[in-house]
Amino acid sequence: MSYFRDNIEAMAAYVPGEQPQGGKFIKLNTNENPYAASPAVARAIQSVLQGGLSRYPDPLANAFRRRAAALHQLSPDWILCGNGSDDILTIVTRAMVGERGGIRSAYPSYLLYHTLAEIQGAQFEQFPFRPDWSLDDSFALAADNLRLVFLANPNSPSGTMLPPDRIAELATQLPCPLLVDEAYVDFAQDDCVRLVAQHENVMVSRSLSKAYALAGLRFGYLIAQPQIISGLAKVKDSYNCDSLSIAAATAAIDDQTWRMENRASILGTRQRLTAALRDLDFAVTDSQANFVWAVHPQAAAKTLFEQLKASQILVRYMHFPNWGDGLRISVGTNSQIDALLDVLGR
Amino acid sequence: MSYFRDNIEAMAAYVPGEQPQGGKFIKLNTNENPYAASPAVARAIQSVLQGGLSRYPDPLANAFRRRAAALHQLSPDWILCGNGSDDILTIVTRAMVGERGGIRSAYPSYLLYHTLAEIQGAQFEQFPFRPDWSLDDSFALAADNLRLVFLANPNSPSGTMLPPDRIAELATQLPCPLLVDEAYVDFAQDDCVRLVAQHENVMVSRSLSKAYALAGLRFGYLIAQPQIISGLAKVKDSYNCDSLSIAAATAAIDDQTWRMENRASILGTRQRLTAALRDLDFAVTDSQANFVWAVHPQAAAKTLFEQLKASQILVRYMHFPNWGDGLRISVGTNSQIDALLDVLGR
Repeated sequence: MSYFRDNIEAMAAYVPGEQPQGGKFIKLNTNENPYAASPAVARAIQSVLQGGLSRYPDPLANAFRRRAAALHQLSPDWILCGNGSDDILTIVTRAMVGERGGIRSAYPSYLLYHTLAEIQGAQFEQFPFRPDWSLDDSFALAADNLRLVFLANPNSPSGTMLPPDRIAELATQLPCPLLVDEAYVDFAQDDCVRLVAQHENVMVSRSLSKAYALAGLRFGYLIAQPQIISGLAKVKDSYNCDSLSIAAATAAIDDQTWRMENRASILGTRQRLTAALRDLDFAVTDSQANFVWAVHPQAAAKTLFEQLKASQILVRYMHFPNWGDGLRISVGTNSQIDALLDVLGR
Repeated sequence: MSYFRDNIEAMAAYVPGEQPQGGKFIKLNTNENPYAASPAVARAIQSVLQGGLSRYPDPLANAFRRRAAALHQLSPDWILCGNGSDDILTIVTRAMVGERGGIRSAYPSYLLYHTLAEIQGAQFEQFPFRPDWSLDDSFALAADNLRLVFLANPNSPSGTMLPPDRIAELATQLPCPLLVDEAYVDFAQDDCVRLVAQHENVMVSRSLSKAYALAGLRFGYLIAQPQIISGLAKVKDSYNCDSLSIAAATAAIDDQTWRMENRASILGTRQRLTAALRDLDFAVTDSQANFVWAVHPQAAAKTLFEQLKASQILVRYMHFPNWGDGLRISVGTNSQIDALLDVLGR
């Protein structure tokens, strides 16, 4: 007899994402920010090192909560910190969805939602996006066991976004919590934070991996009404965020000047990348994220991926069963994108 | 209707441990190491900062796995890294115990085992230690739904340890996995790592919080047979350890000279603390950890705790229902212990 639960036994083996540890590749495959984080981050880490690491961190990361609350014009008890926004999604799932409970998401979208349902022994249902990446009202239909809805907004792989008004409509119709995953929202034109105060069932998750160039740090947070936050706090590991990351994340979120300048660079390069790919006959979806989704009418995406990899350029080849495939290309520096376009042009 | 699962709704609100953020207290309440970590830790962090934090960390923390494997004379696929050993305990619980599955532990012991059962919607049963802190054979009795046994060894609050031979007997009798939680084992005379190769159902968890003075870092690991490790890897967050902590933990475990010197200091102070408390008429259990468990025949533990706190000395007052109470006192520096003894003497 296996020591593992049946649902865990049934899962495919864990395959780590492609993260070559050598330095030769141009990495445009995991939506990392190509620039170095705010210099305030290293200073904050130095400061923690001065005091040493022998003491446990603040369990609720209140220093970060206060600054994030100020940024979003909320109070700190509307903020829950996590070891990356994946930790946040995990906490929410464990708190709200039992075995055979239902989790809903859109398709294609972030693969983790399905994985979390599998780990939890929950049922997972996916509603396909329409060809224009919108969702019809059936997405908000009640279902007996429905306990949680995940919606990445902007979505991956498309980079598209449902407008907050549409999210508000869906939230009103849905009989359960709606987690709006805003990992990429700092590159978009709008966000859904204001919906949290208006809808008890809306939660918004954020990540510092992309917009603050801190994927290596693991820090994310959730914005939700205080009674939701206090319920979720029961489920998190007591010390889920470490002293270095709390200080670093606090410094990062405090440097909005850095973020706005970085955002302007990424958006400039995104525009250039989109236009250049279209010149090469790719169909490219208008992106509100730090990546673009590109499909070529003739060249097979898998082949292009392999040709780029042979030239030391990693992009993400994604194939979604019963849907299709394409390339998700992270917005790198201008020179990284030049190198990409050079190979694709040949 | 609540958005939370019934088992989560039924849980008491999360109360963070007492972690005064001011610097005035002598903290002897959470078993932190009173000394600064190996200088190699800060150097490793500096080195990561040079390369920046914009990239995702190695999902499996292979640099650490290789060094830990060498230390334990195993191969790296016997090691799973976690965001603190609490993360390890969480992963094991989620992977092995479904709703209404059984988790067993001894009593009194680490409170997290019960909390993890509550979060998972599992059943929890506690077998009392005998007065000499041993366990009788009933601890290994089969039960229909039993899926996982947690055993802290050394145990908290007692600081006592079951010998590895006794653990091996229990493992042989038990029909399910046995996780031996060795968070404190670096201060003991023996450990159970060698049992892992002999018993498929034995797993050993380790923490860098205590013996490596890195509670602020959040890093722990599990030692288990490779087929167990690969099943557990399905359940962990993809990037559960961050780049800074992986590098810091690797540097820390590489500096065994520091660890042995630090251990000698702690053990010397522990001996002195134990003797001095006994001179003050406390009953003190012989400890194999970096804390001692002390009960006074006349003075109430709660009162002593409060008097110490009024003198800016924090120890841990612990009350276990249907069992009793006492003080768990972390082994600090010699001067911290002098201050404690000074107040207790008055």
